[in-house]
Amino acid sequence: MSSPGSQPPQRVSDVGERVLIERIRKRVPPTPAGLIVAIGDDAAVAALDRGTLQVLTTDSLVEGVHFDRRFSSPADIGYKALAVNVSDVAAMGGTPRLALLSLMLPEAITLAEVDAILDGLLEMAAECGVALAGGNITRSPGPLVVDVTVSGSVKPRKILTRGGGRAGDALYVTGRLGAAAAGLAWLRAAASSTAPESGRAHVSGPEDAHLAECVARHCRPAPRVRIGALLGRNRAASACMDLSDGLADAVTQIASASGTGATLDASLLPIHPGAISWFTAAGGDPLAASVAGGDDYELLFAVPRRRKGRLRAVVRESRGIPITRIGELTAERTIGIVRGERIEPLPAGFTHF
Amino acid sequence: MSSPGSQPPQRVSDVGERVLIERIRKRVPPTPAGLIVAIGDDAAVAALDRGTLQVLTTDSLVEGVHFDRRFSSPADIGYKALAVNVSDVAAMGGTPRLALLSLMLPEAITLAEVDAILDGLLEMAAECGVALAGGNITRSPGPLVVDVTVSGSVKPRKILTRGGGRAGDALYVTGRLGAAAAGLAWLRAAASSTAPESGRAHVSGPEDAHLAECVARHCRPAPRVRIGALLGRNRAASACMDLSDGLADAVTQIASASGTGATLDASLLPIHPGAISWFTAAGGDPLAASVAGGDDYELLFAVPRRRKGRLRAVVRESRGIPITRIGELTAERTIGIVRGERIEPLPAGFTHF
Repeated sequence: MSSPGSQPPQRVSDVGERVLIERIRKRVPPTPAGLIVAIGDDAAVAALDRGTLQVLTTDSLVEGVHFDRRFSSPADIGYKALAVNVSDVAAMGGTPRLALLSLMLPEAITLAEVDAILDGLLEMAAECGVALAGGNITRSPGPLVVDVTVSGSVKPRKILTRGGGRAGDALYVTGRLGAAAAGLAWLRAAASSTAPESGRAHVSGPEDAHLAECVARHCRPAPRVRIGALLGRNRAASACMDLSDGLADAVTQIASASGTGATLDASLLPIHPGAISWFTAAGGDPLAASVAGGDDYELLFAVPRRRKGRLRAVVRESRGIPITRIGELTAERTIGIVRGERIEPLPAGFTHF
Repeated sequence: MSSPGSQPPQRVSDVGERVLIERIRKRVPPTPAGLIVAIGDDAAVAALDRGTLQVLTTDSLVEGVHFDRRFSSPADIGYKALAVNVSDVAAMGGTPRLALLSLMLPEAITLAEVDAILDGLLEMAAECGVALAGGNITRSPGPLVVDVTVSGSVKPRKILTRGGGRAGDALYVTGRLGAAAAGLAWLRAAASSTAPESGRAHVSGPEDAHLAECVARHCRPAPRVRIGALLGRNRAASACMDLSDGLADAVTQIASASGTGATLDASLLPIHPGAISWFTAAGGDPLAASVAGGDDYELLFAVPRRRKGRLRAVVRESRGIPITRIGELTAERTIGIVRGERIEPLPAGFTHF
């Protein structure tokens, strides 16, 4: 949407809130049935199916905390802001339905950048069948903030909480671990080796395909909407959580909420090949970095022994996304990881402060 | 919650996210029936009544844009952050049910301040029957941001949108106009006349009772939840909106969405006595300031002639909150205010950029 030629890009403060909302309204796909009032009134109004529960979650991306504009394009930021919320609904076994977008815009942001944030958000919305139903726009005297709320639905008794696990349940994880952490580490290294005087606004990606996948995963996580809904629907899982703050954090949370401990087996962890090569080359411990690193947005879930058949049905429909057994919940309330002959404590997860 | 004695107040960054969420969880009233999963999982899960629609809205308060910590206490900020959202649900004829709280906390904020934000929010929640169901906490490298999402319910065909008005419908407003604007103007004047060296963190209130009411209204708006729900339930109103950005803005929005114009009568406007005395003393135009000033969170609504009986039923149940006819929607699509012999354009409302 940026205009060619030498004109300076239009700032948001040149056009005001009304014009901005109109731009957004025009770009949002047609209102689906069931969304009675969409963008433009005091609130959005939606009809949920009868006999379903509403799942509600909110998560924000704050510039300088959750993203760096040198690494993530505005479209990446919009995409991820919705993806992280959708991931929370998936982790409850729910189906995401509606999103609200709360934008806090710094003075210098351009209209083209706001358009791109929306492009990214709508791309994710189309991928997971979510309708943007409303939101709020305001000025920020500080960082760019993209705060999203997602409302979804789930049938009663199909909800996946963190607290349903029992000792003896096997722990599984979707996808690969450590990709987002390796991608971010690569971006930071690339940025610090680029002279700031070069004026390059955006770090370009690595040539190595595995690492490029890691960078892509950091910028655009892939929430496991389908697997989450399948796990809830056929009740394969007793507990579930997404890896927003890393595997170590998620294992701790599920065990704590379920009143159990947990043991992981290091040899089973599906660490992303890009994470292995990057953290090894950097002289680090790929396992520790991948277990502690956040932003993977894979699902961690517990499966009771008698429900393994149900899990196989989910695996058959997982469209190539790996589902790997990595350990189990234990009666003894400690959290550890078996590494060769030893059992070690888990590295700490990402903290927000 | 601040500790006595000379110890420095605890900072949020001393305790971390987990402790903060636990503190919040402990202070939230018992989970109401229908809230299946509350704070502490990936998302909140709620059962709505069958045959009802879900109303969803989000609105944020950003330090330096929407509040000044010299004027509003942390409890005021929490109270208002929920109130402005509840007001949006009321303006749709809905009943607010659940809230999500998204906090972005600057480094230097203390635990006692976070506790107080929550106190204020829970006070408003208790007043309007809302349950805090979840949310998100993160660090802010800039301003304090309190972003709230409210989910409410409304029966089909009882929704009040902005767009249902017709030419000839009378326009009504709840409460008094200009109070919040006068309160803010007073606070700003008081702050600029206080030497910053005095180190007073908080401006104390005015002695004049009307002005004190205005300051209170700026810091703690009173969303018209009951009247909004009544207007929706008995279908007295054809269109409705809250005055978050001022009367001039709301009249323009309702007229535009309804495909009409509007004429107000200056002599009918229920301007708050504190606003009249303050803006007059300051050499301003109380009417213009009260019509343009935002943050009143009263309701503006249109009533077709044949539904006046229904409106009387609402007035009887409004518990002393004035409901005043101030003009009408017109076929000619201009917006004006009759002032003595002349018809003038409306002063512009609050803009966010």
